[in-house]
Amino acid sequence: MKLFRSRTKAAGLAPGTPVYVGTPRTGDVSITVFDFVADRVDERRSCSVDECLPLRDTSTVSWVDVDGVHDADKVQRLCEHFGIHPLVVEDIVHTVQRPKVEDHGDYVYIVVRMLQRDQAGELRSEQVSLLLGPHWVLSFQEEPGDVFEPVRNRIRTGNGRVRKSGPDYLAYALLDAVVDHYFAVFEPYSERIEAVEQQLSRNPDPELLESIHQMKRELIGVRRAVWPLREALSGLIRAESGLIGKQTNVFLRDVYDHAVQVIDTVEAFRDTVSGLLDLYLSSVSNRMNEVMKVLTIIATIFIPLTFVAGIYGMNFRFMPELGWHWGYFGALGLMAAVAVVMVIFFRRKRWL
Amino acid sequence: MKLFRSRTKAAGLAPGTPVYVGTPRTGDVSITVFDFVADRVDERRSCSVDECLPLRDTSTVSWVDVDGVHDADKVQRLCEHFGIHPLVVEDIVHTVQRPKVEDHGDYVYIVVRMLQRDQAGELRSEQVSLLLGPHWVLSFQEEPGDVFEPVRNRIRTGNGRVRKSGPDYLAYALLDAVVDHYFAVFEPYSERIEAVEQQLSRNPDPELLESIHQMKRELIGVRRAVWPLREALSGLIRAESGLIGKQTNVFLRDVYDHAVQVIDTVEAFRDTVSGLLDLYLSSVSNRMNEVMKVLTIIATIFIPLTFVAGIYGMNFRFMPELGWHWGYFGALGLMAAVAVVMVIFFRRKRWL
Amino acid sequence: MKLFRSRTKAAGLAPGTPVYVGTPRTGDVSITVFDFVADRVDERRSCSVDECLPLRDTSTVSWVDVDGVHDADKVQRLCEHFGIHPLVVEDIVHTVQRPKVEDHGDYVYIVVRMLQRDQAGELRSEQVSLLLGPHWVLSFQEEPGDVFEPVRNRIRTGNGRVRKSGPDYLAYALLDAVVDHYFAVFEPYSERIEAVEQQLSRNPDPELLESIHQMKRELIGVRRAVWPLREALSGLIRAESGLIGKQTNVFLRDVYDHAVQVIDTVEAFRDTVSGLLDLYLSSVSNRMNEVMKVLTIIATIFIPLTFVAGIYGMNFRFMPELGWHWGYFGALGLMAAVAVVMVIFFRRKRWL
Amino acid sequence: MKLFRSRTKAAGLAPGTPVYVGTPRTGDVSITVFDFVADRVDERRSCSVDECLPLRDTSTVSWVDVDGVHDADKVQRLCEHFGIHPLVVEDIVHTVQRPKVEDHGDYVYIVVRMLQRDQAGELRSEQVSLLLGPHWVLSFQEEPGDVFEPVRNRIRTGNGRVRKSGPDYLAYALLDAVVDHYFAVFEPYSERIEAVEQQLSRNPDPELLESIHQMKRELIGVRRAVWPLREALSGLIRAESGLIGKQTNVFLRDVYDHAVQVIDTVEAFRDTVSGLLDLYLSSVSNRMNEVMKVLTIIATIFIPLTFVAGIYGMNFRFMPELGWHWGYFGALGLMAAVAVVMVIFFRRKRWL
Amino acid sequence: MKLFRSRTKAAGLAPGTPVYVGTPRTGDVSITVFDFVADRVDERRSCSVDECLPLRDTSTVSWVDVDGVHDADKVQRLCEHFGIHPLVVEDIVHTVQRPKVEDHGDYVYIVVRMLQRDQAGELRSEQVSLLLGPHWVLSFQEEPGDVFEPVRNRIRTGNGRVRKSGPDYLAYALLDAVVDHYFAVFEPYSERIEAVEQQLSRNPDPELLESIHQMKRELIGVRRAVWPLREALSGLIRAESGLIGKQTNVFLRDVYDHAVQVIDTVEAFRDTVSGLLDLYLSSVSNRMNEVMKVLTIIATIFIPLTFVAGIYGMNFRFMPELGWHWGYFGALGLMAAVAVVMVIFFRRKRWL
Repeated sequence: MKLFRSRTKAAGLAPGTPVYVGTPRTGDVSITVFDFVADRVDERRSCSVDECLPLRDTSTVSWVDVDGVHDADKVQRLCEHFGIHPLVVEDIVHTVQRPKVEDHGDYVYIVVRMLQRDQAGELRSEQVSLLLGPHWVLSFQEEPGDVFEPVRNRIRTGNGRVRKSGPDYLAYALLDAVVDHYFAVFEPYSERIEAVEQQLSRNPDPELLESIHQMKRELIGVRRAVWPLREALSGLIRAESGLIGKQTNVFLRDVYDHAVQVIDTVEAFRDTVSGLLDLYLSSVSNRMNEVMKVLTIIATIFIPLTFVAGIYGMNFRFMPELGWHWGYFGALGLMAAVAVVMVIFFRRKRWL
Repeated sequence: MKLFRSRTKAAGLAPGTPVYVGTPRTGDVSITVFDFVADRVDERRSCSVDECLPLRDTSTVSWVDVDGVHDADKVQRLCEHFGIHPLVVEDIVHTVQRPKVEDHGDYVYIVVRMLQRDQAGELRSEQVSLLLGPHWVLSFQEEPGDVFEPVRNRIRTGNGRVRKSGPDYLAYALLDAVVDHYFAVFEPYSERIEAVEQQLSRNPDPELLESIHQMKRELIGVRRAVWPLREALSGLIRAESGLIGKQTNVFLRDVYDHAVQVIDTVEAFRDTVSGLLDLYLSSVSNRMNEVMKVLTIIATIFIPLTFVAGIYGMNFRFMPELGWHWGYFGALGLMAAVAVVMVIFFRRKRWL
Repeated sequence: MKLFRSRTKAAGLAPGTPVYVGTPRTGDVSITVFDFVADRVDERRSCSVDECLPLRDTSTVSWVDVDGVHDADKVQRLCEHFGIHPLVVEDIVHTVQRPKVEDHGDYVYIVVRMLQRDQAGELRSEQVSLLLGPHWVLSFQEEPGDVFEPVRNRIRTGNGRVRKSGPDYLAYALLDAVVDHYFAVFEPYSERIEAVEQQLSRNPDPELLESIHQMKRELIGVRRAVWPLREALSGLIRAESGLIGKQTNVFLRDVYDHAVQVIDTVEAFRDTVSGLLDLYLSSVSNRMNEVMKVLTIIATIFIPLTFVAGIYGMNFRFMPELGWHWGYFGALGLMAAVAVVMVIFFRRKRWL
Repeated sequence: MKLFRSRTKAAGLAPGTPVYVGTPRTGDVSITVFDFVADRVDERRSCSVDECLPLRDTSTVSWVDVDGVHDADKVQRLCEHFGIHPLVVEDIVHTVQRPKVEDHGDYVYIVVRMLQRDQAGELRSEQVSLLLGPHWVLSFQEEPGDVFEPVRNRIRTGNGRVRKSGPDYLAYALLDAVVDHYFAVFEPYSERIEAVEQQLSRNPDPELLESIHQMKRELIGVRRAVWPLREALSGLIRAESGLIGKQTNVFLRDVYDHAVQVIDTVEAFRDTVSGLLDLYLSSVSNRMNEVMKVLTIIATIFIPLTFVAGIYGMNFRFMPELGWHWGYFGALGLMAAVAVVMVIFFRRKRWL
Repeated sequence: MKLFRSRTKAAGLAPGTPVYVGTPRTGDVSITVFDFVADRVDERRSCSVDECLPLRDTSTVSWVDVDGVHDADKVQRLCEHFGIHPLVVEDIVHTVQRPKVEDHGDYVYIVVRMLQRDQAGELRSEQVSLLLGPHWVLSFQEEPGDVFEPVRNRIRTGNGRVRKSGPDYLAYALLDAVVDHYFAVFEPYSERIEAVEQQLSRNPDPELLESIHQMKRELIGVRRAVWPLREALSGLIRAESGLIGKQTNVFLRDVYDHAVQVIDTVEAFRDTVSGLLDLYLSSVSNRMNEVMKVLTIIATIFIPLTFVAGIYGMNFRFMPELGWHWGYFGALGLMAAVAVVMVIFFRRKRWL
């Protein structure tokens, strides 16, 4: 996951000018529309913007899901028709927003970050903008692929409450899908942490450090996505907007609870990962110390022995020991004795 | 204690669908019922769900204790009859909730985490859900074995206030039992910490590190269980729910005090354990330094001596000293002198 | 000071059952009574509980000071007569409470921790419970020996306001004595810290580490005693209990100020002690580095010299230098030159 | 960026005496004036103070942009005419203010810090004071060069709302330009961080440390500029000053959002940079350990070999091996065997 | 600066007993009086207490500046006449107070800490007590020498507002002088920090550590002086005491701003100094590593060479190489080759 994304292209322009700052994308914006009441649903894929405009005034519940905000003009045209403030349009297209909730009276603007792992297990973060109006929900995503499939299925089959409720429940269901998916994002952590822990005790190699460091960075990213969301949700619940029914408020409190749980989990993971880092460092230094100690001891034992050999290698004319018959074996014996004494000494000091 | 538990199975389902996520369990859910007034108590074990349903409408105080929430259907049937909101049922079964208190008007929903040590001394965390209604208390646990036995005994014998008071006091008594047991969970820490401290000064080995690290992880877990509980209790006390009498509120404040004390203790333990880690690291490095220093000094003393021996081992034709009669002993004396000077030097520098 | 004390004996009992958990004590509870008005004082030592009971209803100011709460029955009998709630009695006897203030309408319950150093300079923490009623103050201590002697003297001699004021001022005076004594507890720190600092620069040995670690632990303990006290006092001042006159409130604010000052001092000590630890570690590592460096340099200088000696110790038949007349002295000169060059090199690199 | 700037010159003077404390500057103060209504704009460069004074009473929107506050007299004369409080004038000239917003009823005083990178990529911080009156905006900068050019262009061309709105929108546009430029200041970080990370794994050299340290210092500076701004903006939005229309308030909330985003980003960068430091240290120590280990192993292998050579270099008369025909090759074989055994041993211990 | 000062002498006395705890001082208390209205000033030095008493009832503004509080009796007599509460008198004399503001209705009591550097550059902290009454200001200092000279000059010359305003403005001016001087106290830091930084990269020696440690301690002290002051000032501004005019309140807000700026600066300095410590430690360890590495490499290169020399120093009878004519030079060549190969190897591994 990229932690930071350039914003410069937008700086310097008049406020309210929508400028896309995400990964450059070509191809068309894809719009999917769900239009439903309790007993009927109409799903249209690849709509044009013009097809969506009439939905503003129908009394059915309409969900216009725009996949791709790189075509700022289309987004602007759609939003203008639905009466969205230019600053909001700017935020939709300018996909570096913090999660937030803004109540504009006629509609509520919600920004969340959708986290997903791609095939390579890489974490990807995408801005999702939700606009909740009296009879419609507009949603804007950056990239193809999302976590809303279960919601779509419930709309198609009529399972659960989503078809029987208004657009507020639909917005809730989308929020809930995003927040619930955060847990799936955490799934691999428990295992990874356990794996790292086991390896640490066996063989602390620098790749583990890399792996710990990466988890840490991902957690910083997740944290940035969830902390502001919690505040935002709490604001939304307290705001008592006319657009959100009392019943849906109960459900929003549930999403809020989940967000708090995510934060809780992130913080606990952060603590644990910090602990792993400490453990890694202690482990490396323990291991290194062990190596150095044994090697130094070997060296230290041989140094006096070499010294003894050096003495009897001197060429003095008068060295009585040299002439002794058992001199050589005596010297070897002396060396053995020195070695044994040193080993005993090291053992007693518990260095060996 | 497992810090994190998978939630994925639940993600993607319609909100309000109860899905069990704990350790897979077979066997039946075991339901125990206490039905009592001040002068009479009726205890029934292994009830069926149907036997419990009439208790909703009797005027006696009823405690339905459900041990095992893996059979989501039974839980749902029971709860539906008592008028519990589907989202609450989902939370009861979905045993990864943070401790919280929700006042639903007709009943109060309380989630706490029950901590126990099993035979192996391993810490186990279990979600306990309490539902407090006008004449009944429903409690849901994940696993057999709990900390409620003293409460049961007081109901059986009529000791204390529990039989003379309403369901609010019963709920309080259960909460109190859970929170009081946290202290028992801490019991082994003081001793373990002292043991670790004593060993540290004698022989800092890597197992101690492991032990410190484990205490740290357990404390992260306990902290996650208690912090939110405190907030939740504080909310409950201030909420002035009609279901909780003024007298019981005094007792709840007592539980709140205990929770604060637990937090206090956890934080102090965390500080202490962090201090132990620092002590361990300093201790290891002190010890290592000591070893290295002595060994290096030994090596350093012999290096010049070996050099002297090397000089007189050279084969130059004209080396006057070699012919001297006392040359050999003079060389030995020189070596001894060098060694003594170096030892004195090291001592004066306080390196030895 | 013991940081943590077992609570298990109390867990599992009905709430409101007083159970003593402190150090086991035998011998009788000692009760001292002061009964005074502005111009008269009556001091009785070693009273029985029965002698104290009538004091509830007299209009003089009575101070019943109970030294020892290990005899739970006596405490309970006394308290019951004075109309104290069973949960309060439990807290008095169960001496592991956090400092707190509870306004029960008819009386105010105050828990503080009295810190004292014993002869060995060891820090000891004792729970003191104060009960302030309309005409009386009950105080409960765990162990003989307290910090109230100055207050007693003022009552005896009639110095200051204590005899002229009501029981609220007396309670204040006791609180003030406890809080003021915290400063005496800190007294030795400034000197110890300075001593440690001076020794650190001269000779950082592991005992200093031990000493720093112990200060750290004591400060954790003191902090646990004082932080909650501050909150509690602030609550008491704002509560405007009818039992505390407006004039005494001014004095309570003074105690509050002192408590804040204590916290301030503790925090500054903690910062300083942490700094000492850092200094210790840097100091040890500096010293170690210095040792290692010099020793390594000695070794490094001799290694090439020994190599030169080794060359001329070889036994090749044709080694022209060996036959030279000045060969030996040339070799010695070469060695000296190598040594000098290396020393100069090390000096220039500022390693020496 | 200089983190701290001397304030001493100002200390000791009567409050309300404006004293310039920035980099000494010569040359004249340069004043630029924009005077506009929706359909007409009048831009005057290098105005004198006297030319500006009449603008106070015209009904057009006037922006007086003063570049350079080192000439305290001019600033004072201008401000006095516009009715600015002496303490505010002192703050304008005394360019060490924290960002703040003060509502003085007749005008609003806003201090922000404008951050820019100069040609060398060095971060420069400049105090910008904005005064928002009923028909005018005064702005004061320290140095030539600012981030307001896009705003000026919009005034000149009549793009966006700025010409159609009042002075409140103009003040907002200036604030927005300053805050938006913070993101440009961060631009190089992402790349620098990535570059540092890549280099770390390859070759951790001390220059990286320097680079990390500098990023850290810059972030401290940016943080000091933005944190108080957020509070100040939040205060401004809530204050509901009569000088700021309801419509402009919506825009201010947008600036506030951006400020929060900046803080968010700064905090995430700080976390990341701290992580880099840890990574650097681990990396250095890993690398060092690796070097030391291999070298020590080489030394350790040769030490026993040299010892063997030393033995057969001894000059004892009776050393049977010396006379053996294959003695020499036997000795070489022995040495080879020892070396192989040690290498195998080291490999098995995974030290090699 | 001494961080902690003994308080014991005061513990145990009746509250309201003034006891001096500062550095023992002999000599008389020196009292200076300024008595002024807009157009007239009367300055009297070395007044007696009795001369000051009538000033309570005159309608001119009187400033009684008492230099030295070691003579508790005089302070008490003066204060009693001006109607000051005994606890306040105790605080004035007992010079270990935290900065605070107390509104006693008839007068406001303000405690601040005056920080100054003495000739040696040592930081000195002194308690200054201000009492603001309806027509008078009493100020109490511990030691001769203060930062009020500019205020005195403004009174003497009639510059600024001080003569034209009431005692509230005078008290403000004194506070302002104290707070503004904090910046002068910081003055040397920027330079010291830069000096330390430059030296660090060149030659990290233990004196730098000492210097960093001392800055850290001073900053702890300054922080203790300023944090509570900010709270206190904020309280004073909100309190709307009748003794402080609306106009002076604007000025107090300015002092408050300065205090916040001081805190801000202290925190940034603390961050920077912590960064320096990290840098020092990394720098020392970098340098040490560099030394060790080069030395170890030298040793490692010579060890195999010495081994080769050792081989040809052996005394075996049959060593064919010894008889070769070019044997000696061949051996030397072998050694050179080994050395070159090792250097190349080390270079390629980038260890050299």
